[in-house]
Amino acid sequence: MVVAESGFPSPLLNLDQGDPLIFESFWSKFNDECTVVIKGNDLMSYMSDPSNVCWFLLPVLRDAIKRIHGVVGNAVTDGKHIVVGTGSTQLFKAALFALSSPDSPLPMNVVALAPYYSEYKDEIEVLSSSLFQWSGDANVYDKDEAYIEVVTSPNNPDGAIRGPVVKSRAEGKLIHDLAYYWPQYTAITDNADHDIMLFTFSKCTGHAGSRLGWAIVKDIEVAEKMTKFIRLSSIGVSKESQTRAAKIIQVICDNYHNPGSAESNLFFHYSKRLMLERWEKLSEVIKNSNVFTVARSQGAYCLFTNESSESHPGFAWLKCKEGIEDCEGYLRKLKIISRSGKRFGVDAKYARLNLLCNDAFFDEFLMRLSNNKWISG
Amino acid sequence: MVVAESGFPSPLLNLDQGDPLIFESFWSKFNDECTVVIKGNDLMSYMSDPSNVCWFLLPVLRDAIKRIHGVVGNAVTDGKHIVVGTGSTQLFKAALFALSSPDSPLPMNVVALAPYYSEYKDEIEVLSSSLFQWSGDANVYDKDEAYIEVVTSPNNPDGAIRGPVVKSRAEGKLIHDLAYYWPQYTAITDNADHDIMLFTFSKCTGHAGSRLGWAIVKDIEVAEKMTKFIRLSSIGVSKESQTRAAKIIQVICDNYHNPGSAESNLFFHYSKRLMLERWEKLSEVIKNSNVFTVARSQGAYCLFTNESSESHPGFAWLKCKEGIEDCEGYLRKLKIISRSGKRFGVDAKYARLNLLCNDAFFDEFLMRLSNNKWISG
Repeated sequence: MVVAESGFPSPLLNLDQGDPLIFESFWSKFNDECTVVIKGNDLMSYMSDPSNVCWFLLPVLRDAIKRIHGVVGNAVTDGKHIVVGTGSTQLFKAALFALSSPDSPLPMNVVALAPYYSEYKDEIEVLSSSLFQWSGDANVYDKDEAYIEVVTSPNNPDGAIRGPVVKSRAEGKLIHDLAYYWPQYTAITDNADHDIMLFTFSKCTGHAGSRLGWAIVKDIEVAEKMTKFIRLSSIGVSKESQTRAAKIIQVICDNYHNPGSAESNLFFHYSKRLMLERWEKLSEVIKNSNVFTVARSQGAYCLFTNESSESHPGFAWLKCKEGIEDCEGYLRKLKIISRSGKRFGVDAKYARLNLLCNDAFFDEFLMRLSNNKWISG
Repeated sequence: MVVAESGFPSPLLNLDQGDPLIFESFWSKFNDECTVVIKGNDLMSYMSDPSNVCWFLLPVLRDAIKRIHGVVGNAVTDGKHIVVGTGSTQLFKAALFALSSPDSPLPMNVVALAPYYSEYKDEIEVLSSSLFQWSGDANVYDKDEAYIEVVTSPNNPDGAIRGPVVKSRAEGKLIHDLAYYWPQYTAITDNADHDIMLFTFSKCTGHAGSRLGWAIVKDIEVAEKMTKFIRLSSIGVSKESQTRAAKIIQVICDNYHNPGSAESNLFFHYSKRLMLERWEKLSEVIKNSNVFTVARSQGAYCLFTNESSESHPGFAWLKCKEGIEDCEGYLRKLKIISRSGKRFGVDAKYARLNLLCNDAFFDEFLMRLSNNKWISG
């Protein structure tokens, strides 16, 4: 893994990983309200809630998750089961286990429409499991065998709004990865109501270091199997992270429920503005570029903000003009580290860059993109 | 999974899982010293230390881990790599991945001497991986194929001190699971210096809810592979848990470094006394029992406490007398939930019971064991 070199300005500007530091400025304003205090003998047991399918989920976090989806209107939680995980990464695998069967003679084929999130493939292949296998682009899947389609919406890397695409007549199951289905990235157009929906604290609020995700699951047997997988993987999920996520989500919701809140104190409004500003600046640079174009899905009317809204993906999905075949390599000459389109199942003319980095990185990124001396270098 | 019913006294006394609540009384005395305060914009990045192999390990935790092993003298950390995990459960799997190879035509055989920790088998088998497979009791392993032996010492369930036992001439690799190699459970007889050593915060201090473990790894390639596995499983480990573990470990070490500390403020001395008291009470009940015997390994001279010391395992490993073939079933008649010997690779005459439960559970356990009305019921 390539990592940011310490200190800045760095010779290499690392925009490979989607570290969401952009939102720090909001949380520094609410440092005190969001503070959690954990004493020596707090949170010691494995157990959180023996009465719940997901027995390691703290009730206070369960309530906070239901509350924030109620405030935003982006996912139905009523009558569903919430399973907490060590990031949505762990939950993705838990869902694959829940949807596949050791009794099946063939591994389940896992597909996603290209360009797809680069890590799905690696996360599956590292296990070398006979339960499931990575089968690539959902758009060309034509086997007669059962499959799992991962529907990532908005999509990572390109922010596209998606539904399932597999045309096979075989039995298919769906996992909806809704990590970016929050108002700062996209218009909230409906209250999602799918069988398995994955969310992550990282992309919702920017707290990536907490490694906290949740799944909203319709079927109790699926929730039980996911819980079992997490038990056998890590015997639950950090209670410190759960406690903190609950607190931060409560602060977001409290501000929305307070009619006197200034807009700058409303997290999704504030963070949407940050994303809008970045996209305006980036679009300007791209417009003046003779090298790159950038993907951006259409806007829509957002039921949460009650206004028409452009999309503001967390990544720039750049495409090089004809004649430049290796976008990642080209960017590397500008001393910018990106992730090649090849990792996302498309060709190398594309590359993904993190737009959730801190201000210094973002400004440097724009400068390097727009600076012809670098481009010709 | 069978869980404790809410409220107490409960009709069913659940001593199946090893929840280490016994140590709460110590931490309540140090609630203030151990308090961690985490503000809104703390710990947001995925990244902890780009210069380290394990880039998601917080330096403050790395230093605390090295320090506590220095204080106790139970493991060599100099010149080694520390990999943090979501409990040692995640690290166990990370180690299996690091020691096996996708290029190998056959799965690695994973073995452990029976009675072995019941979860190894389930944790491996849930993955259905072609990289490795559970191959049972190390004592009867006679294949000519490469293997990984898990050496659990002190052993779960019975507290035995162990070394490797496989006699096969095939190439073997070792994982040392030293979760219970702390002074409250056993005499510290040497500064362990194995290739891969697993420890967990749960059993060291009793903070099971934090899901925090660490591996001390000699070979940098193994540490890199383990780090990669954890990246693909959960993109790191909760920073809130890391921060808290660092703080609590520092408090333990500070007290040991303060020459004026009362013995009751020294965690390992205090917790050893708790374990000793429980084992004295349990031994008395067992002595008067006409049904059970209990495993207990020999004592030894402890280099940490500078005294000869009995072992005080975290579990009671009970055996029923002749004529009672199903110890778990027998205990269930006493309304005690235990884990059958069959789960540990031996016969059903044995059962494991958690001795790290809270006082109310432990007292009730002794009462039910010694109460003839129950036994005859």
